[in-house]
Amino acid sequence: MHMKTSTIYNFNAGPAMLPVAVIQKAQEEFLDYQGTGMSIMEMSHRGSVFQNVLDTAESDLRELIGIPKDYSVVFCPGGATLQFSAVALNLLNAEETASYSLTGVWSVKAFKEAKKFANLVTNIFDGEKTSFRTIPDIKESDLHPASRFLYLTSNNTIYGTRYAKFPDVSIPIVADMTSELLSRQIDINRFGVIFAGAQKNIGPSGLTVLIVRNDLLREMRHPIPVLLDWKILAKNQSLYNTPPTYSIYIAGLVFSWLKELGGIAAIEKINEEKANKLYTYLDSSGFYEVPITQPYRSTMNVVFHLKNKDLEKNFVEESENFGLFGLQGHRDAGGMRASIYNAMPIEGVDQLIEFLKGFEKKWG
Amino acid sequence: MHMKTSTIYNFNAGPAMLPVAVIQKAQEEFLDYQGTGMSIMEMSHRGSVFQNVLDTAESDLRELIGIPKDYSVVFCPGGATLQFSAVALNLLNAEETASYSLTGVWSVKAFKEAKKFANLVTNIFDGEKTSFRTIPDIKESDLHPASRFLYLTSNNTIYGTRYAKFPDVSIPIVADMTSELLSRQIDINRFGVIFAGAQKNIGPSGLTVLIVRNDLLREMRHPIPVLLDWKILAKNQSLYNTPPTYSIYIAGLVFSWLKELGGIAAIEKINEEKANKLYTYLDSSGFYEVPITQPYRSTMNVVFHLKNKDLEKNFVEESENFGLFGLQGHRDAGGMRASIYNAMPIEGVDQLIEFLKGFEKKWG
Repeated sequence: MHMKTSTIYNFNAGPAMLPVAVIQKAQEEFLDYQGTGMSIMEMSHRGSVFQNVLDTAESDLRELIGIPKDYSVVFCPGGATLQFSAVALNLLNAEETASYSLTGVWSVKAFKEAKKFANLVTNIFDGEKTSFRTIPDIKESDLHPASRFLYLTSNNTIYGTRYAKFPDVSIPIVADMTSELLSRQIDINRFGVIFAGAQKNIGPSGLTVLIVRNDLLREMRHPIPVLLDWKILAKNQSLYNTPPTYSIYIAGLVFSWLKELGGIAAIEKINEEKANKLYTYLDSSGFYEVPITQPYRSTMNVVFHLKNKDLEKNFVEESENFGLFGLQGHRDAGGMRASIYNAMPIEGVDQLIEFLKGFEKKWG
Repeated sequence: MHMKTSTIYNFNAGPAMLPVAVIQKAQEEFLDYQGTGMSIMEMSHRGSVFQNVLDTAESDLRELIGIPKDYSVVFCPGGATLQFSAVALNLLNAEETASYSLTGVWSVKAFKEAKKFANLVTNIFDGEKTSFRTIPDIKESDLHPASRFLYLTSNNTIYGTRYAKFPDVSIPIVADMTSELLSRQIDINRFGVIFAGAQKNIGPSGLTVLIVRNDLLREMRHPIPVLLDWKILAKNQSLYNTPPTYSIYIAGLVFSWLKELGGIAAIEKINEEKANKLYTYLDSSGFYEVPITQPYRSTMNVVFHLKNKDLEKNFVEESENFGLFGLQGHRDAGGMRASIYNAMPIEGVDQLIEFLKGFEKKWG
């Protein structure tokens, strides 16, 4: 078996690094899942072997996050973008409204998608005015009074911002937590719906975890494409049709890895340590610059700039030679970005800081 | 590395057996894709490594099937059921119509889905009257005169039937080819749209291949969920959002395996040989029975019954002890089913026949 080269670190924003223990285990049982002589990828989704994988994944996820019984957990096909449409179609009749907080590209896309189906949805915060570098402190009075829910993106992968605290409002929050579900503790009771594309902290792309409070599921006045209909997905416990079985299996391995590690409280501590270390170094340097101020900073995606932009190409090239991949920032935000999800060990951040120092020394 | 036990054969209807060479290669490069030190599962969909995987998969698929330039090829998230909605939303305004041929559960589901969005779609063949055991010989005069397309399921996984020849009509055919795309040669020019869930002949579940003639893509009068909008998916060449990257990678390995094997003409010959061998034995036996008559028989899913139904449980149990898995038929059709997709080698069918003979000898 190939061993993963320990000096390579992958800072991709997603699809992203997976825990080494997870992909090693997946490789080991790739051809023969637990003595069945078959790959889990080849097994029927209606068989007892996969059913067990699915059930364990769901119960581990419930345990990790602390999801009460009155919430359904669904493993949906596709990414979070598919759920942008589903949010509107499942929660809003055409004449109903919701308040959307626009803190980045993804919430803007979700907002546009909702407006296609329910044209009264309201934008209550326009982050574009501050180049998406801030996060609002949303109060009840900011909401459109008829809002059925408040929509937000909890962490903004592209700009490196997050809600350090979630708004305390009387209506349910619908949160796209794609880039931070499982990375921090949350009080689930604040949320009516949480969804997260898998390719950051959960597993391979093409899978989205959906958590929805059952009382929000109701008959709507418009037709919904059957696989976007949360009532049907929830009722059939992720098995209305053939789900992305292999991706669910990998997600299950990730959940089990996280449990062994001590759960979300433990990983949150590590994540804060990683982010603090990196931000502290960047703030102390006169060579690099973090465009996001303290209260809004993401612990998952650390966005930074080189004060001398002409060095960006060299930075990417030299970082790759150093074994650090995926540091180029998103085209919309510019600069650099280190995505340090759950799977990134503290040693990866140490390596990055070592490189940052060396690069500054060479070019500063 | 584990070697796949050669005596195990997996007759699951889907997710199904993958070519041994494909999953062995996938295992080998699972932790380190072509010297990058990363798993392909961890790589950005915007990076050059994955872009190359995607481009090669598309061009190999085009070459295998002979897809002309005026057709788009899209790797869609999710399964075929998601496309049941997309067919209606992309091809029919509310007052337009299409003719649906209902030869099994999947075309019935697609029909119901279409009626949600365009209530004039017409059922031109009701297979339920013959318990879905026949396939119609559709003529131009059978179609609703205003039909924009003829919808059909080319192979019916559950009942073991298929269109041996496709209808010769003047409107485009929209075909769900989930259980037989890549298993037989087709004249693509008869088809306006072909889609196929991956988990039979293509790769892991959670991916659907869509082939659509570009002139059928037009602005519709209703909103379409963005990830069901074929115009947007085609324009962005499968990269509007993060696609199911790992599943596309496996599909690419399957395409490349098929090319090396000699392409669709070669595999079609093998598939016919496998099916003929199995049907010939079953027909010759007084112990088993094939409910489907010759002209309608699928080469992918061989459905058969034990004349003595009381032996079904023993059959499943003993076949598993013999190393043959997944032979239990679908609950809607009853009896047994051997799914013998591209990845099933002729030796697997030989093993099955050997078992069938032995079981008959013991219990007959």
